[in-house]
Amino acid sequence: MIQPSRFTASPAASLSLFRQRSPLVHCLTNDVVQSFTANVLLALGASPAMVTEPVEAAQFSAIADAVLINVGTLTAARGEAMLAAAQSATAAGKPWTLDPVAVGALTFRSDFCQQLLAYRPAAIRGNASEIMALARQAVSGRGVDSLHDSAAALDAAVLLAQSSGAIVAVTGETDYVTDGERLVAVAGGSPLMTRVVGTGCALSAVVAALCALPGDRLQHIAAACRVMSQAGERAAAAAGGPGTFEPLFLDELYHQHREAAL
Amino acid sequence: MIQPSRFTASPAASLSLFRQRSPLVHCLTNDVVQSFTANVLLALGASPAMVTEPVEAAQFSAIADAVLINVGTLTAARGEAMLAAAQSATAAGKPWTLDPVAVGALTFRSDFCQQLLAYRPAAIRGNASEIMALARQAVSGRGVDSLHDSAAALDAAVLLAQSSGAIVAVTGETDYVTDGERLVAVAGGSPLMTRVVGTGCALSAVVAALCALPGDRLQHIAAACRVMSQAGERAAAAAGGPGTFEPLFLDELYHQHREAAL
Amino acid sequence: MIQPSRFTASPAASLSLFRQRSPLVHCLTNDVVQSFTANVLLALGASPAMVTEPVEAAQFSAIADAVLINVGTLTAARGEAMLAAAQSATAAGKPWTLDPVAVGALTFRSDFCQQLLAYRPAAIRGNASEIMALARQAVSGRGVDSLHDSAAALDAAVLLAQSSGAIVAVTGETDYVTDGERLVAVAGGSPLMTRVVGTGCALSAVVAALCALPGDRLQHIAAACRVMSQAGERAAAAAGGPGTFEPLFLDELYHQHREAAL
Repeated sequence: MIQPSRFTASPAASLSLFRQRSPLVHCLTNDVVQSFTANVLLALGASPAMVTEPVEAAQFSAIADAVLINVGTLTAARGEAMLAAAQSATAAGKPWTLDPVAVGALTFRSDFCQQLLAYRPAAIRGNASEIMALARQAVSGRGVDSLHDSAAALDAAVLLAQSSGAIVAVTGETDYVTDGERLVAVAGGSPLMTRVVGTGCALSAVVAALCALPGDRLQHIAAACRVMSQAGERAAAAAGGPGTFEPLFLDELYHQHREAAL
Repeated sequence: MIQPSRFTASPAASLSLFRQRSPLVHCLTNDVVQSFTANVLLALGASPAMVTEPVEAAQFSAIADAVLINVGTLTAARGEAMLAAAQSATAAGKPWTLDPVAVGALTFRSDFCQQLLAYRPAAIRGNASEIMALARQAVSGRGVDSLHDSAAALDAAVLLAQSSGAIVAVTGETDYVTDGERLVAVAGGSPLMTRVVGTGCALSAVVAALCALPGDRLQHIAAACRVMSQAGERAAAAAGGPGTFEPLFLDELYHQHREAAL
Repeated sequence: MIQPSRFTASPAASLSLFRQRSPLVHCLTNDVVQSFTANVLLALGASPAMVTEPVEAAQFSAIADAVLINVGTLTAARGEAMLAAAQSATAAGKPWTLDPVAVGALTFRSDFCQQLLAYRPAAIRGNASEIMALARQAVSGRGVDSLHDSAAALDAAVLLAQSSGAIVAVTGETDYVTDGERLVAVAGGSPLMTRVVGTGCALSAVVAALCALPGDRLQHIAAACRVMSQAGERAAAAAGGPGTFEPLFLDELYHQHREAAL
């Protein structure tokens, strides 16, 4: 098994590049987190858009710089749009990222995500249960929360990276990012982040956006994890609870974006 | 007619039990309030999830500890998922709660909710117009806001509780909770709560979650009303308007949750 | 070409009328901004409702005081509901407002919006790219953000107002409102408004709501632009970033509403 090395680089380099490019990110994400996801991307200087009719989703995925597919509130109709978007993104050479929400716990989406893998995602971001299920390891997820520590999914993450060709991020108290050969551990964050809906989903959107950048994708994705965990630490220190955490978290992301050199 | 008795108990007992159990709540709710509903449940220590494809909604309702069905943005497709979820929850012995948004004002959802009642909800939470309409009393609702004071619906609430077997909560300036025999009045709250979308819908989600607890369901639901109205009072005292009210309200719920003994 | 005159009137007259009437606004809007849109309307004292099943959307549009149609996350199914709502609103003499999100960049919605125009909107609110595309001028939009300054679309706005019979608002750093004969410029706002999702969409909802008032619709819509830009300026002055901007913005709208004489 590969031993994880600690991510010690500053995310500033990735953020600077991000600020220069201001990527247009097509988000096919779940109903619950759409607004928060858009606000996270806007705070970081990206340009989010959500387009859901299959024919438009395909057209737009070829125009966008990056695509996010999050199956949280998957329906048959939305699945069609997601397949069309993944296919179109792949054909146009645009990177797309998969967030396999609750895969393993529910059958329809588990089958659907296996089908999606054929379109070769650039990145996959999930919790331990989801990554283990996607790698077809035995798991016991229950709803959207992981019953496993992120470290428990390291083997699964490495195997999934190797079989899918994607960079895989397993997130939890510590986040792990692997390309199947290298394995980076990103520490930090705050327990308050688990009391606000969509922090994981929004991280996937940031991962998707950073896949639009040139350079070492593994490092960019580790930087995405660190940008989010750092904003989480700072917001948690100032917040009176999960309610005031959310606006402060967005402010922190905005400050990181503003401080990144152009 | 039954005379209402005032709810004077502390909601702390219900909250303690809630904190120990951390129920997984399957929310089939409307598009407008999904994020706020999830954040209210998370602040109180529950685990919310929204699953909308009919086959998954059925599968997940049997796994979850409680189910919420809110018809605010009902569509034919979502109606299918709701029927599947209600049927599956009933079959698995899991309690489900109905929020009959705008029933009475609109025909399609009024018929749909009558159909849903066959699956025996554990609880029903609505405003006066909605509860009167669901009890097939003459009403004049207009959109999502009640044209009646909650007290006007007391007879309807008692009758509906008797005919449906559900605990019925009619909420407004004063909230009333009845099982058809007992009738409890819960005072408190703030007018600012009517200037933020989803406070009523989120209360229904908390009611749904508390139905997962053992013990006296009427008392748990009255506690849910008091938890929300108390958080509303405290947040309103500190807020500069409805915008800053919302994060402060979530913080207050979180504090109530943290203070509940484990 | 018509020269724009500056809007120098106070929006207080429109807000007072608005406060007296408290219009019921039926919003058929996109998934991303539903909650924020509802909260903006609530802060200003209106009563928002979102009804999406075609048969109900038609029924409700005749009951409501005004209707908003925003095609941001258009699907074929939602398109049906929108056509039914526009038709029903027109038949009942209720004003409806079109927000042609990303028209020009995407084919399906561009065709759909041309079809919608047959139902004679009372108002249209978009950015420069969208208004130029809707007026069938050559444009180069990219996603939801305009690549043109609002001034570039003045000719298109005037032509569109003349051909559609609607008041047209092109918004950007300066907002322009025209009825095809008069042209009013509304200055103000804050760059932070572009880092929060839904400020444009919410403005369209306020425009829709103000169309329910008697009096000079051009002036009301210019007032809507000013109400929003003024709240934006004040919130931006107090905010630490786009996260804290949003609650402060809603508070400011609420204060403007409260200060408007009844």
